[in-house]
Amino acid sequence: MAKILIRAMVLPMTGLGDFYPEGEIVLDGENILSVGERGSAPAGFVPDRILDYPNDVFLPGLINSHTHAAMTLLRSYADDLPLMPWLETKIWPFENKMSAQDIYWGTALGLCEMIRSGTTAMLDMYIAMEQVAEAVLAAGTRAVLARGMIGNAPNGQQAFRENIELLKNFHQLGDKRITVMFGPHAPYTCSGEFLQQVKAEADHYGVGINIHVAETRDEVAIIQKYQGLTPVQWLDSLGLFGGHIAAAHCVYLTPEDMEILARKNVCVTHNPESNMKLNSGTAPVPALLAQGVTVGLGTDGASSNNNLDMFGEMRTASLLQKLQVGCTALPAYQVLEMATVGGAKVLGLDKVGQLLPGYKADLISVNLDQPHFYPRFSIPGHLVYSAHAGDVRTVIVNGKIIMEERNLLTLDEQKICSEVETRAKRIAAELS
Amino acid sequence: MAKILIRAMVLPMTGLGDFYPEGEIVLDGENILSVGERGSAPAGFVPDRILDYPNDVFLPGLINSHTHAAMTLLRSYADDLPLMPWLETKIWPFENKMSAQDIYWGTALGLCEMIRSGTTAMLDMYIAMEQVAEAVLAAGTRAVLARGMIGNAPNGQQAFRENIELLKNFHQLGDKRITVMFGPHAPYTCSGEFLQQVKAEADHYGVGINIHVAETRDEVAIIQKYQGLTPVQWLDSLGLFGGHIAAAHCVYLTPEDMEILARKNVCVTHNPESNMKLNSGTAPVPALLAQGVTVGLGTDGASSNNNLDMFGEMRTASLLQKLQVGCTALPAYQVLEMATVGGAKVLGLDKVGQLLPGYKADLISVNLDQPHFYPRFSIPGHLVYSAHAGDVRTVIVNGKIIMEERNLLTLDEQKICSEVETRAKRIAAELS
Repeated sequence: MAKILIRAMVLPMTGLGDFYPEGEIVLDGENILSVGERGSAPAGFVPDRILDYPNDVFLPGLINSHTHAAMTLLRSYADDLPLMPWLETKIWPFENKMSAQDIYWGTALGLCEMIRSGTTAMLDMYIAMEQVAEAVLAAGTRAVLARGMIGNAPNGQQAFRENIELLKNFHQLGDKRITVMFGPHAPYTCSGEFLQQVKAEADHYGVGINIHVAETRDEVAIIQKYQGLTPVQWLDSLGLFGGHIAAAHCVYLTPEDMEILARKNVCVTHNPESNMKLNSGTAPVPALLAQGVTVGLGTDGASSNNNLDMFGEMRTASLLQKLQVGCTALPAYQVLEMATVGGAKVLGLDKVGQLLPGYKADLISVNLDQPHFYPRFSIPGHLVYSAHAGDVRTVIVNGKIIMEERNLLTLDEQKICSEVETRAKRIAAELS
Repeated sequence: MAKILIRAMVLPMTGLGDFYPEGEIVLDGENILSVGERGSAPAGFVPDRILDYPNDVFLPGLINSHTHAAMTLLRSYADDLPLMPWLETKIWPFENKMSAQDIYWGTALGLCEMIRSGTTAMLDMYIAMEQVAEAVLAAGTRAVLARGMIGNAPNGQQAFRENIELLKNFHQLGDKRITVMFGPHAPYTCSGEFLQQVKAEADHYGVGINIHVAETRDEVAIIQKYQGLTPVQWLDSLGLFGGHIAAAHCVYLTPEDMEILARKNVCVTHNPESNMKLNSGTAPVPALLAQGVTVGLGTDGASSNNNLDMFGEMRTASLLQKLQVGCTALPAYQVLEMATVGGAKVLGLDKVGQLLPGYKADLISVNLDQPHFYPRFSIPGHLVYSAHAGDVRTVIVNGKIIMEERNLLTLDEQKICSEVETRAKRIAAELS
């Protein structure tokens, strides 16, 4: 692995105000060796490569804490529809037609887009996850993978076995870039017994659980009707919490729910654009953060977003809370923390999400020498409120440069775009 | 002027479903000569230039219907603050320090950013508007300019005289790329008498009026307290409506207000990101459109956004209404109409906002050969939900190519960025 010396602005995400306007980062193989002012590299360090970008800011790679990458196959297949007709007449029939190979190519497309927009790690829940794992291995990114399991579906136990197989075959693969979790879909699609089975296996293997929680009003009503509890209370009563839990959405929470999430160290992923597009609601993010709950940020799948761009997601997250709560809600730096430090915690990753010696070399650069980044009053402000996906110049994961000068080095984009176009149109034609 | 033949996908914005997957556009000087399928160019037409972009879609240039371009000087100078301290301790003191030259450079920076993100026309309200006009003439874009007048301020009458001078000196200049309107700031900053003076002069010169209306709860409360009416009702009672009116924001409207706006043909500009960032509220856009009111889309100034990117604004506009109203609110094509056809109407521009023979050659291309635009199920959906500012490849205004392959051809970006950096930091230093 290469020894890389970076000279640029550095936003290490180690605390508000930490910033090196003329900074230096040293990467040694998979890890960060040093971060600091110009001249702070260890004496005698001889780099193989120097990246000299005085007008770029380097920051930790963004972490997409909740997505279904293969759903790029469904991008704009069905927009602007009511939720249930959308699911029943469009999304589910389309998904039923997807082959494992379709999922490989759809995931690869999502990874192309994520790398181009500065995302270095994702938490992905879907089906045919061995295909997702292969795409991640090829892309060179970091990922936590969970086999989505609809416990109440006829294939619930089959999915459960596939999740265990995924764990056995892919956990810690690719220089430990891949981690596996269990993926019970949601409180309203899994029985209490199924969730407890999953929890026992997660504890047995010492891995986490990824689950959708309290995403919609309907979910809350269903759980209330059948269990007499909120989704969070019900999951807590089942004993699901305690180990590592990554709970996506958490739009509808009572004060008691938030207290449970905080006490049980449940990590939450906020998905503002998907929650807006599907009319789900607004998660109480400032209240969760005030209680000390870890909150990451995710795009959800491309069928309800429709991009996988974490810069847009950061802006939307902040603007949405400012609208609902007030002008001071979710300041820029706090949103950046959600997309980096917070994301790493949601994914259960150690030494990821900040630029510090000994941490994994997962970092990106944004080219600030563009009109929408002047004047330079606040770099965090610019990254959250002004930046867009196309501003990312460099992407490095686990010490390896996977995008340089916007050239993607690990995946064949043309082939991937062409495969997805053909495969998605084939499925749509079969359904029309 | 050049004769240009374009071969590309064409979305002419002439009606839902109108789309040429293999289209052809012919530009003859300032105007569009023909739009259609490949081979539809008039027989014997000999182009000076051929733009052959089979993977780009050409559409009408986006129209930013409400902005204060020079406020790029304040970008991220003060984020995440409550409204009144933000204005009183940050924005107003900074603006008081701005020179006319500062406003020239700030506007030029805004124009660089707008061109780069596919905006070909703007409605701009600010001060030192002759500087804004000079920047627009240099940039090669189209603009409607209004001198912002705080009628109740000591310089109210002076500002009024400046607006008349602006009209005399710049209206219809630059091959008619510049139009001038009157810019009384808002119902709560102008007396009824002042507004009636403005209306008389607007009628005298046969030009429109640009005004902020019903932006905040406080404004509504103030007008209700002193006039016993809503802002819209009060302006109507003063006789302000009737000619061309471009009303920005219109967040707080009663059913009667909406009926008045529809009956009096008042055009409205929606500014979702600014309204969210400043906790102003959500304008009832679907209800306005249902009543037949013309609605355009704007970014507002960079101090409350913080970019001038109409692609982001389109996405936010749709997502916000889906959150507040329902999944089917503001479908992609309707949002594109707001940013093109609607914008042209707000700006009072004839033969702008659509690609049709005889229309002005104001058009842009978006490079769709990128991962986030596959599969190609819906081009309008991709433009609204997936696109970002960096995807614009070509910008043509009044028949002249002003950005080609992302190279800005009319303005010296480096010089402008550098001037703004120096000038903004100088003002901030004077205030610290």
